[in-house]
Amino acid sequence: MASWLEALDRRAQLRAKAGLTRRLRPRGATDPVVDLAGNDYLGLAHHPAVTVAATEALRTYGLGATGSRLVRGSTDLHSALERALADWFGATRALVYSSGYLANLGAVRALVRPRTLLVSDAHNHASLIDGCRLSGAQTVVTPHADVAAVEEALAAAPGRPAVVVTESVFSVDGDLAPLARLHEVARRHGALLLVDDAHAVGVRGPGGAGAVVEAGLAGAPDVVITATLSKALGGAGGVVAGPAELIRHLVETGRTFIYDTALPPAVAAGVLAAVELARDGDALREELADRAAAAVRHLGRAGLDVSTPAAAVVSVTAPGPEAAAAWAADCLDWGVAVGCFRPPSTPDTRSRLRLTVNVGVPRAEFDRALDVIVECAP
Amino acid sequence: MASWLEALDRRAQLRAKAGLTRRLRPRGATDPVVDLAGNDYLGLAHHPAVTVAATEALRTYGLGATGSRLVRGSTDLHSALERALADWFGATRALVYSSGYLANLGAVRALVRPRTLLVSDAHNHASLIDGCRLSGAQTVVTPHADVAAVEEALAAAPGRPAVVVTESVFSVDGDLAPLARLHEVARRHGALLLVDDAHAVGVRGPGGAGAVVEAGLAGAPDVVITATLSKALGGAGGVVAGPAELIRHLVETGRTFIYDTALPPAVAAGVLAAVELARDGDALREELADRAAAAVRHLGRAGLDVSTPAAAVVSVTAPGPEAAAAWAADCLDWGVAVGCFRPPSTPDTRSRLRLTVNVGVPRAEFDRALDVIVECAP
Ligand SMILES: Cc1ncc(COP(=O)(O)O)c(C=O)c1O
Ligand SMILES: Cc1ncc(COP(=O)(O)O)c(C=O)c1O
Repeated sequence: MASWLEALDRRAQLRAKAGLTRRLRPRGATDPVVDLAGNDYLGLAHHPAVTVAATEALRTYGLGATGSRLVRGSTDLHSALERALADWFGATRALVYSSGYLANLGAVRALVRPRTLLVSDAHNHASLIDGCRLSGAQTVVTPHADVAAVEEALAAAPGRPAVVVTESVFSVDGDLAPLARLHEVARRHGALLLVDDAHAVGVRGPGGAGAVVEAGLAGAPDVVITATLSKALGGAGGVVAGPAELIRHLVETGRTFIYDTALPPAVAAGVLAAVELARDGDALREELADRAAAAVRHLGRAGLDVSTPAAAVVSVTAPGPEAAAAWAADCLDWGVAVGCFRPPSTPDTRSRLRLTVNVGVPRAEFDRALDVIVECAP
Repeated sequence: MASWLEALDRRAQLRAKAGLTRRLRPRGATDPVVDLAGNDYLGLAHHPAVTVAATEALRTYGLGATGSRLVRGSTDLHSALERALADWFGATRALVYSSGYLANLGAVRALVRPRTLLVSDAHNHASLIDGCRLSGAQTVVTPHADVAAVEEALAAAPGRPAVVVTESVFSVDGDLAPLARLHEVARRHGALLLVDDAHAVGVRGPGGAGAVVEAGLAGAPDVVITATLSKALGGAGGVVAGPAELIRHLVETGRTFIYDTALPPAVAAGVLAAVELARDGDALREELADRAAAAVRHLGRAGLDVSTPAAAVVSVTAPGPEAAAAWAADCLDWGVAVGCFRPPSTPDTRSRLRLTVNVGVPRAEFDRALDVIVECAP
């Protein structure tokens, strides 16, 4: 038993040697740092309409939901949020979870029947990967955004139920999956398409409805959307949207839905207010696109290797894990928070800075932050 | 693809025929129902100190944490909550998760090394079961609360790392695991003991510190505690508490920690206030014990088969799933919310009502609710 602590310690030493130590850096209420790291893309976490709605719900519903959704945790706020999300996404129904992570675990498992083949993109988020693993289904991992490889995997399993699993805007590199083509291939083979739209909801598509709507797949009976309520919507929680039969199935059999305490009503209320703001947020999205373009221009001119952002996530290559960590730490010393992604949090062996465009940040500070990033580059 | 919706529909029909349909029943802000179903055991979800702390944090931090704990989501409120929980549990360190479900997934996986054997109680919560599954480790399920069976499983795997996984107060039947004896057996075999203390924290032990502390296992280097912040603490979230090496390991490698948005700061603030109230809550715990005893007396006298509650959960046997659902629905018609547990949410094939003692409910209403339950009994 002492040996397990020693073993954990040895592994920590190994990580430290490889430049892979991670440390929590708590921020205070009045955080002077310019935020190019968080996922509050539309600046809604601090929007008065959001915090006032949450405050009012705190007063009337109390803090926690006090139970799972089926037993005691469902409130009219959860229902209203589910109707608003389904309507926004053009889906028949939507089901809210306490996190996007648990929504993904639930969605993947619900789509698995005996003999199901899962075809999962190599860059998929940990929660999708865990969902595949937990489902027990055979999973083929296809190269990133490779439609031909998906088609090949489906063709190799004729007659078997299959689900193609992908993000829309990928969380680390910020690129967009070829959703329409993936759907076409999936449909041709009678497979379902599960899209995690976490980083596109609020940012892409008409009225910010996300990349699935943008790709013309709203309401398709063979498409299931998952998303988080914790990014452009500025709150917390997750959602699965799709056909009524699926939602009923999740309510009646989904373990991560049934055996989990509901999202706090105040959070549901705040997110509901955020949905309305996001639908109305074309001006915010224009500003966001403008800043994303400015970031690419500015960092590219400085000779940095910058991704082409499909939404609010910009990825900048770093020479290695130590350099990435040092770069991010330097930026922080200059008052700029950026994400630092090193293995195993990157889908490949490349380390990078992950910058986010958050329109809640004053424009001048955003522009200054780009200067800092260039200045601190290794 | 139409076929998958038809398949889901067929399964829904089968569940309906077996009396296993589940329906969401959202409640409003001013819910007139007497709550014997939720897990707000100490009535803290509505406590002014809790909602005021959360409201203040909403104002200063905004709604969501805006990122994962390592990237942007950690605030000083999360740190303060972690210190308070570690101190309360007598553990070296504690780590807060966005849910108890994700805390359990993370804790089980972190304790698994190559060749690890998991020894899991037959009544364990879905999140622990999923944790075992997701870890990929060989798992032996032992009969409920059977120390000899645990010993046998450990003895059959000499020289292998092993973890005994159990709840303290079990969520459905409300009985207490033999923690001290489990620990003795685990230690004798060099195994770790993982205890999900979700339903005992705030309710059992000195200052409500939980069943692990009560069993004299606080700070033991071979014991790991998990718990939810969503039951007696009236909020949301989960926690893992244990040796510093484990917490560091979780921070640096735990997927359900690293790749998940942090608990909203306002929820952390509210739960922090709730921890202080719970530590000071001996009077609440006395009232709770008194009500639990009253429930057993009252229902027992009426000839019902009632469990002996170790904390705030009372289980009452129902003749079958339909009868349980009808019983619970009748109670609700009379203004009393009770939990209705049917397969597969019960650890055996027995259906039951699950009653909870919530001291926030006025005593007279609680007593009336017991009358209603007796009156509606099949
Ligand atoms: C693509 C993607 N899916 C799912 C999640 C998990 O969502 P949540 O943080 O709400 O658990 C995240 C990020 O956290 C994500 O980036
Ligand atoms: C014993 C036990 N563990 C874990 C959980 C999951 O915690 P949470 O609801 O915070 O996800 C629950 C209930 O929900 C539970 O009863």
